[in-house]
Amino acid sequence: MSEKKPIILVTNDDDITAKGISVLAQAMQELGEVIVIAPDRPQSGQGHAITINNPVRIRKARFFKDAIVAYETTGTPADCVKMGKHLILKDRKPDLVVSGINHGSNTAISILYSGTMSAAMEAAIEGIPAIGFSLADYHPEADFSHTVESIKAIARQVLEKGLPKHVALNVNFPAKSEEPLKGIRVCRQADARYLESFQQREDPYGRPYYWLDGDFVNFDEGTDTDEWALLNNYVSVVPCKCDLTAYSTLEDLKSWEF
Amino acid sequence: MSEKKPIILVTNDDDITAKGISVLAQAMQELGEVIVIAPDRPQSGQGHAITINNPVRIRKARFFKDAIVAYETTGTPADCVKMGKHLILKDRKPDLVVSGINHGSNTAISILYSGTMSAAMEAAIEGIPAIGFSLADYHPEADFSHTVESIKAIARQVLEKGLPKHVALNVNFPAKSEEPLKGIRVCRQADARYLESFQQREDPYGRPYYWLDGDFVNFDEGTDTDEWALLNNYVSVVPCKCDLTAYSTLEDLKSWEF
Repeated sequence: MSEKKPIILVTNDDDITAKGISVLAQAMQELGEVIVIAPDRPQSGQGHAITINNPVRIRKARFFKDAIVAYETTGTPADCVKMGKHLILKDRKPDLVVSGINHGSNTAISILYSGTMSAAMEAAIEGIPAIGFSLADYHPEADFSHTVESIKAIARQVLEKGLPKHVALNVNFPAKSEEPLKGIRVCRQADARYLESFQQREDPYGRPYYWLDGDFVNFDEGTDTDEWALLNNYVSVVPCKCDLTAYSTLEDLKSWEF
Repeated sequence: MSEKKPIILVTNDDDITAKGISVLAQAMQELGEVIVIAPDRPQSGQGHAITINNPVRIRKARFFKDAIVAYETTGTPADCVKMGKHLILKDRKPDLVVSGINHGSNTAISILYSGTMSAAMEAAIEGIPAIGFSLADYHPEADFSHTVESIKAIARQVLEKGLPKHVALNVNFPAKSEEPLKGIRVCRQADARYLESFQQREDPYGRPYYWLDGDFVNFDEGTDTDEWALLNNYVSVVPCKCDLTAYSTLEDLKSWEF
């Protein structure tokens, strides 16, 4: 009896030409049938945006000289998952959706801003096991070589064991360094965020415009967080859920007088 | 001793000209000093998108013939909160951020897609009490008259009692009907989502394009959800948190062999 290969949908937010998604798609080829569906332009910081005020387009893309089936879309990362499911795979449900490898980390609160994780969350909403992978290195030519074995190990476990309904994994890797990775740590999301500012500039016509800027600051002293893991050269794995209800606040609120 | 008026920042995702934000800003004027900072074009479905690949602009806008201080920006709802804080209010921290009133409901999983709620969540990330308000009526001329008293009651309670750190409220109103509202219910986020499809069309040059379409389906049989509340003519109030960690999954994952 021949075993059916799992279907793995690969997407990202940096766009289909990014180095990270080529590394990820290649790694996934050892685990199943890979289909790449990714944005045709950078979509960083898109959060869970979906395209509803405009139509979207999708077209066949060359990927590893056609060795991997690939499409590029005008949509956001979340759109890519929807389009992959409804326009490409149709009646075939993916066994796994992986997103990334993002050029830049997506720890702590960044999960809310991250296009990489929004694709994984979109899959989780649909009940498909999903993982977002990010590397703490923004460089377009970043070295991803130390991530591949762990990525395959994590994806294999998810394919084998599944994930709870509406849960996706947020996986972050430290940038490549002399020191080898210490291992994989299951973590919670750190209480860390950007302390932001806007840089004011002037256009050639004397009108001001602003660039969002900021420093990422960790307010969390715990050693069980994704930020701690990354800082200490571990791979961080945070299970993330789609239910944002603050259950611990429900009872308190019920005592309010509206 | 004169009491200092609370500073209330008002934003939305439908854009600064929408009826919903004018109703909300007017209601807030009874509670404090109102500053409107809203997108200059519709931003529905923007999720927690922020603008990092382009600069943003902001300019003074007329609002109620200048009776309310207002600015419009080229940014997303989350950008508006950041710009309000850093470019307009500067050293004055808002006491409350309110977003909406959205033309269309934002219950259940819609919180992840909603620009309205992303503005509230952005404030919560910064430790500012925040509320997103939505009405289950997409019509540009929707009747908001039944929402005003509850909006003021909820905002007053939040100004008085605050909210736990990193928690924002997601408030939804049923569309105006013959039946009066039954009251306000504190709820959890329902397990409800869109069953989506894409409508294929052809442009004048014979190339296909696609519109995202879908039906909202409630898979949740609970009577403690936002969907149930709305269906039964209650106002739903869901406390939402920024920490997406699936704590109940952490221990299980720790037993995995990576």
